[in-house]
Amino acid sequence: MGQLTLVAFATLLCSTALVDGGKVLVYSYEGSLWINMKVIIEELHSRGHEVTVIRPSNSWYIKPDSPHYNTVTVNVQGVGDEEFFGTILARLVNMRRDGSSVWARMAMEWELVKSFQEVEKAIVQTMEIIFEDREMMKRLQEEKYDVVLTDPLGMGAMLAHRLGLPLVFSARWAVQGEAHYLIAPCPLSYVPVPDAILTDKMTFPQRIKNALFYLLMRIEFGYITDNLYTTFVHRYFGPDVHYTELFQAADIWLMRSDFTFEYPRPTMPNVVYMQGWQCKPPEPLPPHLEDFVQSSGEHGVIVMTLGSFVGKLPEDITEIIAAAFAQLPQKVIWRHTGERPSTLGNNTLLVDWLPQKDLLGHPKTRVFVAHGGTNGVQEAIYHSVPLVGLPLVLDQVDNMNRMEAKGVAKVVDIGTINKDNFLKALQEVLHEPSYAENMQRLSKLHRDQPTKPLDLAVFWIEFVMRHRGAPHLRTESYKMSTIQYHSLDVIGFLLAAVLLVLIVCISAMRFLWCKVLCRSKVKRE
Amino acid sequence: MGQLTLVAFATLLCSTALVDGGKVLVYSYEGSLWINMKVIIEELHSRGHEVTVIRPSNSWYIKPDSPHYNTVTVNVQGVGDEEFFGTILARLVNMRRDGSSVWARMAMEWELVKSFQEVEKAIVQTMEIIFEDREMMKRLQEEKYDVVLTDPLGMGAMLAHRLGLPLVFSARWAVQGEAHYLIAPCPLSYVPVPDAILTDKMTFPQRIKNALFYLLMRIEFGYITDNLYTTFVHRYFGPDVHYTELFQAADIWLMRSDFTFEYPRPTMPNVVYMQGWQCKPPEPLPPHLEDFVQSSGEHGVIVMTLGSFVGKLPEDITEIIAAAFAQLPQKVIWRHTGERPSTLGNNTLLVDWLPQKDLLGHPKTRVFVAHGGTNGVQEAIYHSVPLVGLPLVLDQVDNMNRMEAKGVAKVVDIGTINKDNFLKALQEVLHEPSYAENMQRLSKLHRDQPTKPLDLAVFWIEFVMRHRGAPHLRTESYKMSTIQYHSLDVIGFLLAAVLLVLIVCISAMRFLWCKVLCRSKVKRE
Repeated sequence: MGQLTLVAFATLLCSTALVDGGKVLVYSYEGSLWINMKVIIEELHSRGHEVTVIRPSNSWYIKPDSPHYNTVTVNVQGVGDEEFFGTILARLVNMRRDGSSVWARMAMEWELVKSFQEVEKAIVQTMEIIFEDREMMKRLQEEKYDVVLTDPLGMGAMLAHRLGLPLVFSARWAVQGEAHYLIAPCPLSYVPVPDAILTDKMTFPQRIKNALFYLLMRIEFGYITDNLYTTFVHRYFGPDVHYTELFQAADIWLMRSDFTFEYPRPTMPNVVYMQGWQCKPPEPLPPHLEDFVQSSGEHGVIVMTLGSFVGKLPEDITEIIAAAFAQLPQKVIWRHTGERPSTLGNNTLLVDWLPQKDLLGHPKTRVFVAHGGTNGVQEAIYHSVPLVGLPLVLDQVDNMNRMEAKGVAKVVDIGTINKDNFLKALQEVLHEPSYAENMQRLSKLHRDQPTKPLDLAVFWIEFVMRHRGAPHLRTESYKMSTIQYHSLDVIGFLLAAVLLVLIVCISAMRFLWCKVLCRSKVKRE
Repeated sequence: MGQLTLVAFATLLCSTALVDGGKVLVYSYEGSLWINMKVIIEELHSRGHEVTVIRPSNSWYIKPDSPHYNTVTVNVQGVGDEEFFGTILARLVNMRRDGSSVWARMAMEWELVKSFQEVEKAIVQTMEIIFEDREMMKRLQEEKYDVVLTDPLGMGAMLAHRLGLPLVFSARWAVQGEAHYLIAPCPLSYVPVPDAILTDKMTFPQRIKNALFYLLMRIEFGYITDNLYTTFVHRYFGPDVHYTELFQAADIWLMRSDFTFEYPRPTMPNVVYMQGWQCKPPEPLPPHLEDFVQSSGEHGVIVMTLGSFVGKLPEDITEIIAAAFAQLPQKVIWRHTGERPSTLGNNTLLVDWLPQKDLLGHPKTRVFVAHGGTNGVQEAIYHSVPLVGLPLVLDQVDNMNRMEAKGVAKVVDIGTINKDNFLKALQEVLHEPSYAENMQRLSKLHRDQPTKPLDLAVFWIEFVMRHRGAPHLRTESYKMSTIQYHSLDVIGFLLAAVLLVLIVCISAMRFLWCKVLCRSKVKRE
């Protein structure tokens, strides 16, 4: 028994498989969210479901023709394109370099908020175009889809409600911050707010910081979305509907995380954790890469990539990184699309693209230098490779700090990076055995599940299709006001009742006391 | 797709099965809790694990010899036996008959509290005997078990901590009420407290009732266990340990429920719902029963049993029930161990024992007349048989009322039962199609799971064995004080800070105002 093994019980509650396919309507966000969604779409397709994807005409990720899905194209003009996002990201990376002082962080936060608002405007505009296109809405209505699959960061939920269809989210972030904040209790005492860079064990000052960051998150997201979404929802769903309701009414939330990636926290019956749905065992490397990897000998290989968006970093940082790599006996495979750094060592191979899963799953790989995007970190956990983090923007800082707290990563601040501290971080993760050991433990915990994550995700999508929703798993508590939800009215009423009883008792006692006193006075007189 | 099918994905994350068996130490409660535990023990045994059960020498359920487990017998004298529990139960049933006025209920509640305290005393005493038996403790220590499996209603958790072993609960009730109250957030606004007989949608007065019942529950359970457990824990674990901590530190809670049985509510990552773990498809009936069932023709069969403890009811109630049954065209199979009622009809077969699952799973069965014990209700859901409820004591009233709210049961109050209202309830459930339809829907939702409940339960027990716990799924928030947990100190601090800033601002403004005023006064003068 002591042996750690990965076990799943092949269970068939019923011998009948889902024979006839259903109809799934997908409304996806762009970029990595689409890459995530595509994994699920391909699986749904392979199980005989018909998938239709709504894509904007200027989409740069969602291709109009695919063997796995049909598309409905929405004609949008100048509503956010690849360049638009690319510019925002480059601006943020540069700001991040300006140092990590409170002012620099606040300036960056403000830039982020403004950028997000731009993005959200484009998103709302696109949905307006769809809602106003009666022809398209009629066609979508007539298609009688079984379920809408979307992300709670966009407007797909609105479409599901408009079409009266069950709703499944693939979620990590939502319109009001990290997705759990919309659906589950989030006690501030042990659930760290993403941006606060804290753990689930906080001191009193840290808990104050957490509360302040929570307020900041609410204010920021309120500023970004409240007006935009409220206007939209009041226009199409009536003045009594709050936009968050339409998200909270989702049947199933497929969270792109689990508790090797997050800290344990309260959850809800209709929340399903599918971290690793995108991970697959490695395949053999192309011969030239395999030769390069094997040439590393006992020292092994370092793999570096900063995600699909950031092919290159500012030149001076690139030089620093290359110089640090050059001092190591390991071989390095680095996805880098910019100029060849002058300090590049013989041990470093620059590539335009790399087979990430096959490299991370290779037994010679020792360290993964990553920006801390959710997918990359989760692949590192799956393949059990410790991390050196160079987080740039968004949730990357938070993801990487969580990994550092779990003892599987070393974070280097891009604002203060130099050859020495980057080299030191690499050497620490390479030579301090705890990093690899902790990652191995985390990886084993993550992989040890009764159902494979992608199967679990598809099971719940099909569940919603079979039962036209999952109402028995969803509380309708979101229909309450904040005061009702937190029982503040009940507490107030009970306190008032206790107070009233006290006042009556005291008055009665004073009255009686007075009577006695008066009588004795009368007697004395 | 529209077809409702039960699907589970046979998934093997890894082809290696758990080959070598582990060592499980079971500390079980008596009665139906042992019957529940035995199902899991037999499954663990069939998968090659070695199970050791600690049993008191006067146990009336846990047999000392079994092919599925070894036993360690604790020599106890007069510490709670079958008769003791039987007497309590009979007394409570009689009290329940005395009417459902507030006073009658309070008297019964008080009786219940006193009885529970008796039971808890016996439980603590037994554990004291074990802790003091150095020989036995040494032997248990040396056996190097992989996990302790127990119920959070007893003292098994203490033993696990004493032996330093990982801990898995099979849970529905715990030392402080329904098990969720120890482990998950329970917002009073939409989570009904068991005894309050409410649903998850409450009006303002109902929410006040819920809050009051919550206070009552805390007071009652505090009265029952606080002193007993605190004394024990301080003696054996030191004065800084609160007994609830030792429960909350459990690795996995296998809840004997799911959300067809409960209302949806917040939960935690280490809570696993295994409702139905005890349910199996029906087997053919013995020939004489099958003949009797078939003789019912199109009318079908009614099955009645009030659980293993209550073989008979007071005579007058028995007469009422028999008379009502006699007026129906259905055939009735009734588990009844008392006198043959004079009003018994030809259509009613009295039996000492009945094959419950085979009868409930029989296509001719139309209605299940039950007392509302958790197991019976869950079997009714599994086999899709609507209920007529005759709840007697404990959680039966709550269980049955929940089923009534879900539209799958009709409850008859044992305090006000007569032939007419019992007959009316039976006829309503027989002839109003919504009862059968709702139950069918509930049953389909319940059976539609990615992993069979018993497999899921065993998976998580083995998970804890493989990883020596499941710390990544368990928050350590229980180590906080109530004030910390609810961030009351943080809220207080922030309010004080805001107040301070306000006071400083106002003082400064007054000071400046005064300066201006004084100057103008001086000028005027």
